Amino acid sequence: MTEIEQAVASLRPLDEAAMEAARERQSQLTKPQGSLGRLEELAVQIAGITGQTCPRLPRKLVVVMAADHGVVAHGVSAFPSEVTPQMVMNFLHGGAAINVLSKQAGARVVVVDVGVASDLTPADGLVLRKVAKGTRNLAVEPAMTREETRRAIQAGIEVVEAELAKGLDLVATGDMGIGNTTPSSAIVAVLTGLPVAQVVGRGTGVDNAGMARKVAAIEQGIRINRPDPNDPLDVLDKVGGLEIAGLVGVILGGAAHRLPVVIDGFISTAAALVAARAWPALRPYLIPSHQSVEVGHQAMLRALELKALFDFDMRLGEGTGAAIAMQLIDDALAIQAEMATFAEAGVSGKE
Amino acid sequence: MTEIEQAVASLRPLDEAAMEAARERQSQLTKPQGSLGRLEELAVQIAGITGQTCPRLPRKLVVVMAADHGVVAHGVSAFPSEVTPQMVMNFLHGGAAINVLSKQAGARVVVVDVGVASDLTPADGLVLRKVAKGTRNLAVEPAMTREETRRAIQAGIEVVEAELAKGLDLVATGDMGIGNTTPSSAIVAVLTGLPVAQVVGRGTGVDNAGMARKVAAIEQGIRINRPDPNDPLDVLDKVGGLEIAGLVGVILGGAAHRLPVVIDGFISTAAALVAARAWPALRPYLIPSHQSVEVGHQAMLRALELKALFDFDMRLGEGTGAAIAMQLIDDALAIQAEMATFAEAGVSGKE
Repeated sequence: MTEIEQAVASLRPLDEAAMEAARERQSQLTKPQGSLGRLEELAVQIAGITGQTCPRLPRKLVVVMAADHGVVAHGVSAFPSEVTPQMVMNFLHGGAAINVLSKQAGARVVVVDVGVASDLTPADGLVLRKVAKGTRNLAVEPAMTREETRRAIQAGIEVVEAELAKGLDLVATGDMGIGNTTPSSAIVAVLTGLPVAQVVGRGTGVDNAGMARKVAAIEQGIRINRPDPNDPLDVLDKVGGLEIAGLVGVILGGAAHRLPVVIDGFISTAAALVAARAWPALRPYLIPSHQSVEVGHQAMLRALELKALFDFDMRLGEGTGAAIAMQLIDDALAIQAEMATFAEAGVSGKE
Repeated sequence: MTEIEQAVASLRPLDEAAMEAARERQSQLTKPQGSLGRLEELAVQIAGITGQTCPRLPRKLVVVMAADHGVVAHGVSAFPSEVTPQMVMNFLHGGAAINVLSKQAGARVVVVDVGVASDLTPADGLVLRKVAKGTRNLAVEPAMTREETRRAIQAGIEVVEAELAKGLDLVATGDMGIGNTTPSSAIVAVLTGLPVAQVVGRGTGVDNAGMARKVAAIEQGIRINRPDPNDPLDVLDKVGGLEIAGLVGVILGGAAHRLPVVIDGFISTAAALVAARAWPALRPYLIPSHQSVEVGHQAMLRALELKALFDFDMRLGEGTGAAIAMQLIDDALAIQAEMATFAEAGVSGKE
C-alpha cells in the first residue's frame, strides 16, 4: 500500500457516543439550551473527532504549502513570482500575517517548499519537499503529472506525521504561491460545473485586463486538458497546483490521524474540495474558517456543505483565516470543559 | 454639571491623523492592500480612538450589569427571576460562559448589581449600586423614573472610572437580567418605528404562548406609557431596564475616556442605540461584536450603522459575544504592530 492508500484506509467515522456525551454535557451547562450556537456545534464535532467529551487541543500547527505556477506567464497575477520565495523568507523570519496570527492562536508554523520555482536554502521551520520548480502552464498543458501530484500529496501526509511525532492536536492549512487563485478557480469551475467567469476573482488585486486573462487562461486550460469532473485527482493533475496537492495531503493525513483540520480560504478550500470528493470519509474532520472575498469561495463551501465561521472581507491566504478560527475553536472547547453545570452552580432551570 | 453632562462634554471626535498614519502603515505591510479586511478597519478605528498608530489594549474589562424586570409578571421569560441572582453568584464563582470567554480574552469581569430584586451580599468582583429592586412593570406603568435612570447611568460611568484607575484599555458590555429581551425589544420598536412583532424573539427560549404574551405586554406598555421616540432617555425610562441604563453609562463613560467600547448582543445593543441616539458623538467609539439570533438585533445594528463582526447563532448575553470580539481586536492590533513592511522583509511590491 502506498502512503496515500494507507491514509485513506485509516479514515474512520466520527465517534457518535462522544458526540452524544458532549451534547448531554452542554444541556447541563448554566446557559439556555443551544444558546452558544456554533461554539457548541464545534465542541460536538471535535468530541466526535477526538472521542472525548471535553477535548482540548493545545498543540496547534499551521502548515503553509508554498509553490509556483506556470500559468503566471499569462499575466494572471498582480504580483511577480519572485514574491513566492520572498514571502517564504518572510514566514521564516516571523514577519508575515500568518506568523502574527499563529502566535495569537498559540500555533506553530511550518513552511513546506513543495514546488517553489527558485532554490531555497535549508532553514528552521522550512521543510524541503520540492516536487518540481513550479507547475507547467495549465493553460496549455497539464500542470502536473500524476506522479508529481502523488509526491506532493505524500509530502503533505508526511509533514503531518512528522509533526504528530512532536505532539499535535489541531492542524490548519495555509498556502503561498503567486498565481494560485488561478488553479483554485479552475478546480472549483470543473468540480462544481459553474462557468469560469463566475468563480474567478481578483486574487491579490489584479486589474480588469488581468481578470480577463485569468478567465481566458482557465477556459483554455479546461478545453485543452479536459479534466474529468468525476475524477478529482485528474482535475488536480491537470489544472491544480503543487501547494494545493500538498494541502490535499495535509487534509488527508490530518483526518487519517483523527485530527480536526481547519481549512483556510480560497486555495485551502480548493484542496479540501478535491480531498473530500476523492475521499468523502474525511469530510467530517474539516472545520471551515472564514468566508473569503474571492468570489468562487462560496461555491466551494456550498459544494462541501460547509458554512464559514466568519466573514472579515479577507483575501490573504497563508492560513490567516484558519489561525483566527483556531482561537474560536479554543473558545468553544473552553466553554465545553470549564463552565459550571446547573447543579454545580445551584441555578434553577427553565420554568 | 452632573457626571452625565460632564461625560457628554468630554466626547471628542476620533483622531484623524492617527487613523491616516495607521492606514499608511497598513499599506506598507507585507500583504496585498486591504487583504485583511475588517481586521484593518478595526485597527484604524482603534488608532482613531487612542491616537496611536499601533495601539495595544492589554487591560480588558467586561462589565456585566445585572437587574430584574417587573414585566416578568406577564410570563414573558422561559426562566424565573430567581435565576438573576443565581447567575450573579455563578459569575462571581467563575462558572458562567462569560467567565470562561473573558479568561480566553484575558479580560477581567466586574458584575454590577444595578437593580437585582433580591439582596446580594458584598463579594469580590461585585459592585453594589442597586437603584431599585427591579423595574416596575413596563406593560402597565413607566419602568423607571428619570431619577432612577440617571442613577443607573451614573453607576455605569462610575464603574468605568473606578476601573480606569486600576488600568483599563478596552471595555465591553454584558448583561444579566431575566426578562430583559422584553425591554430591549420595546426600545428597538420605539426607536426604529418597527412593529413590535417584528422585533420580538424567543429570548432564553420562551414558547409560542410566551412570545404572544411578550408582544402584547410591549404593545400595551407603549400604548400606556407613550415613550417619545425623539427622546431616547424618555424611551429608556418608560420601557427600559436598569441594566440597560447601567450599560448606557458604561458606553458613555468609556467613550468619554477615549476607550473603545465593545458591544455585546441584543440587550447591550439596545443600550448602545439609546446612547448613540442621545449623544451621537459617542458612536465612533462603538465596536460591534456578534449578530445575535434575537430577531430584533439586526434592526438595532442597522439603526446604528454597525455591521456585526461574526454570527455564531448565539443568544446568551452576559457579554459573551463581546469577549470573543476582544480576541479578534487583539488579532487586528497584533497585525498592525507586528507585521514586517515590504522594505523590512525585502519583498517586491505589485507589478
